[in-house]
Amino acid sequence: MSEETASRVCLSQRAHWAAEQAISFLMAQGVENRDVISLAAGLVDEQTLPVALCRDLLNELLSDDRTARGALQYGTTPGAEALRSEVLKHLARLEGGIVDDLGVAADQVVLSTGSQQLLTSLADVLLDPGDICLVSAPTYFVFLGVLNGVGARTVAIPSDDQGMRIDLLADELERIAARGELNRVKLIYVVSDFENPSGISLSAARRQQVVDLAKRWSTEQRIFVLEDAAYRELRYEGEPLPSVWSFDQDRDTVILAQTFSKSFSPGVRVGFGVLPRELVAPVCNRKGNEDFGSAHLNQQLLNLALKSGRYQQHVQQVCQGYRSKRDAFLAALATEFRDLPEVHWVHPKGGLYVWMTLPDAVATGFNSTLFQSAVKEHKVMFVPGELGYPSTRNEDVVCRNQMRLSFGVQPVDGLQEGARRLAAAVRQQLR
Amino acid sequence: MSEETASRVCLSQRAHWAAEQAISFLMAQGVENRDVISLAAGLVDEQTLPVALCRDLLNELLSDDRTARGALQYGTTPGAEALRSEVLKHLARLEGGIVDDLGVAADQVVLSTGSQQLLTSLADVLLDPGDICLVSAPTYFVFLGVLNGVGARTVAIPSDDQGMRIDLLADELERIAARGELNRVKLIYVVSDFENPSGISLSAARRQQVVDLAKRWSTEQRIFVLEDAAYRELRYEGEPLPSVWSFDQDRDTVILAQTFSKSFSPGVRVGFGVLPRELVAPVCNRKGNEDFGSAHLNQQLLNLALKSGRYQQHVQQVCQGYRSKRDAFLAALATEFRDLPEVHWVHPKGGLYVWMTLPDAVATGFNSTLFQSAVKEHKVMFVPGELGYPSTRNEDVVCRNQMRLSFGVQPVDGLQEGARRLAAAVRQQLR
Repeated sequence: MSEETASRVCLSQRAHWAAEQAISFLMAQGVENRDVISLAAGLVDEQTLPVALCRDLLNELLSDDRTARGALQYGTTPGAEALRSEVLKHLARLEGGIVDDLGVAADQVVLSTGSQQLLTSLADVLLDPGDICLVSAPTYFVFLGVLNGVGARTVAIPSDDQGMRIDLLADELERIAARGELNRVKLIYVVSDFENPSGISLSAARRQQVVDLAKRWSTEQRIFVLEDAAYRELRYEGEPLPSVWSFDQDRDTVILAQTFSKSFSPGVRVGFGVLPRELVAPVCNRKGNEDFGSAHLNQQLLNLALKSGRYQQHVQQVCQGYRSKRDAFLAALATEFRDLPEVHWVHPKGGLYVWMTLPDAVATGFNSTLFQSAVKEHKVMFVPGELGYPSTRNEDVVCRNQMRLSFGVQPVDGLQEGARRLAAAVRQQLR
Repeated sequence: MSEETASRVCLSQRAHWAAEQAISFLMAQGVENRDVISLAAGLVDEQTLPVALCRDLLNELLSDDRTARGALQYGTTPGAEALRSEVLKHLARLEGGIVDDLGVAADQVVLSTGSQQLLTSLADVLLDPGDICLVSAPTYFVFLGVLNGVGARTVAIPSDDQGMRIDLLADELERIAARGELNRVKLIYVVSDFENPSGISLSAARRQQVVDLAKRWSTEQRIFVLEDAAYRELRYEGEPLPSVWSFDQDRDTVILAQTFSKSFSPGVRVGFGVLPRELVAPVCNRKGNEDFGSAHLNQQLLNLALKSGRYQQHVQQVCQGYRSKRDAFLAALATEFRDLPEVHWVHPKGGLYVWMTLPDAVATGFNSTLFQSAVKEHKVMFVPGELGYPSTRNEDVVCRNQMRLSFGVQPVDGLQEGARRLAAAVRQQLR
């Protein structure tokens, strides 16, 4: 069969829904413009990576014949029991309590390939095409792609400096109920700490409220809250907040997803979820088909890191490193944008991103003059803020004049030069 | 909200389709009956695992600061470019040629979490609910679960000692076309070497024929062939066969899925697919949502193993080990079953399984007297052969008197004792 006569490739509906994720375009831009300073990439700072620590721990793991052979063998679908127990201890430390008070057992912990796989699994086991997931706007754009991929309807709830506007969430649920579609609402997605892209955390009061609202409206079926706490451990100032999950006394409504990618190493790619009991089997059934278990060696590595206390030491160093980079970047922005008072940005207390807002008229999308001139002429790249908004019927929610700026990857001089170039590109649009 | 008033959990259609995989029951049996000799588990032999090799390679990888930081950072969705290039060299060696003759580029290689994730991705991007996938009977039961999970219709094609009966495949396609459903046929799944569970390989002539048939019937849309070559490198006698993929001159019809789990380490969990060009983007889009890349560290480990030639040396040792275990197991079966001439089994030239057939009347399923007495009384476990058959309208295809016996995990004395116990359990049913 020659090229000319090759038959048509017929993809599934799902494949069409998953097509054309913005991330691919963004990565291609990065590859094609290697001389740009990327403030776009969501990678971690390579200087924070635990090179010596991993070498030591892997040596330890692979020097004992029994543990070595165990680690190199298949694990189980939910993941290594030892690590799932360590995860509970870890969680107890983060919540400021003890394991016995958590109200969950290790068999409610599922280990995944990053927390991303956990997020996707939840979308898959909960959402049929046309089902509704409520998200704050803006939010993590890869999860918006996941929701598209399962054919869900995504409803954007505006946010402010305390995260998702719970009053507007309540209004929206009211409206959905009024039009008889409450039975299609399956999920509320919240990035609780230092949201990607906005850097904003959901306030403690709202954490309680979102749980209460989900329970109150769970009249036809359970409405779950999926808490994505990927950046939780990257806090550079202020007191840690209890998770949204901790406000769910019954442990039947909130799914907590976390990862060791940001705090330890994304190349090791271990994340986890803490699930309401009824979701454990569905998520494991799905994962049984998907890969019947993420890499077991990596789970044993994390287990050793946590058990030895060296993980916790490492996270402190990581936070110190990012704190100084954040401070340097914020200082550079203040300097470079001092003549542009119409531009403002969020001071993030953690995470990896600075969220910048331009005057309404200045669009930041891939096809905008600003994006094109930033990449081609000024050699600096950012993530257009509109990626963080779902395609939605309430168009007025979407802002097209924002940017996500990452201080994760670039060293301090790169951040300073990046701020200078970005200011020049923006100035060109404004003056 | 108390337990009594908790609202109903409403799962997606997909979650219902993925529920109740037999593997969970099987694993639970193993856990609950720890004194049984398991001839069921599909794990690899721990003695074959490359402990010292992984320790050395990881030390090497993590001792150079640049390669270390690269390996611990995020990879890309399709996986590390270096490993994808090594995979092509590896494939060329297996096909007995050079990379230039393969007719594919490294960007058609996608790395996955085991080959399982690749299989699932293909099912996901090709099959809508109700679409048809043709499989040989019996076949790899986890993939049958995957097909159920996407709501596909699985049509079983009987096999003989040369694998899937291509004449019956042709008949089935004819029948499907006659009833106007050819547009629903998207995939033909074949485990080409030492099929799990039967241990049988598809003959060279049939490899060509399955490709030809797929192309001939691709009149409405492309019918792809998914070749699962997971056991390809575990050959203990006879000459290697060229892959089904190699017969697809146009490289537009066959997807080749392989893994390093069996030949190297399942705990490292690296598999790969070689894809027709049109499927690269759909599979990567799907993987972008799923995990945006399997563990990068593990990919770099495999890359080093292949590049250094130490992988190839290791595979030779692995095959030597399994060869003697297979021989010991076959000898033990011949001895223990010598008074039961009505029982016969396949002599596998590779892989990890011996496929045993009992007289028609002796059922082997989970609820059968044999299975129950084997596990409870004789303390030996096997995989019921019926798991390898899809729920099908043509019930006569399904055999209920077969067993998959693995010689992968047990040491030689375990295999001998297992054969003795199994013969006792079978004898009890027959006499």
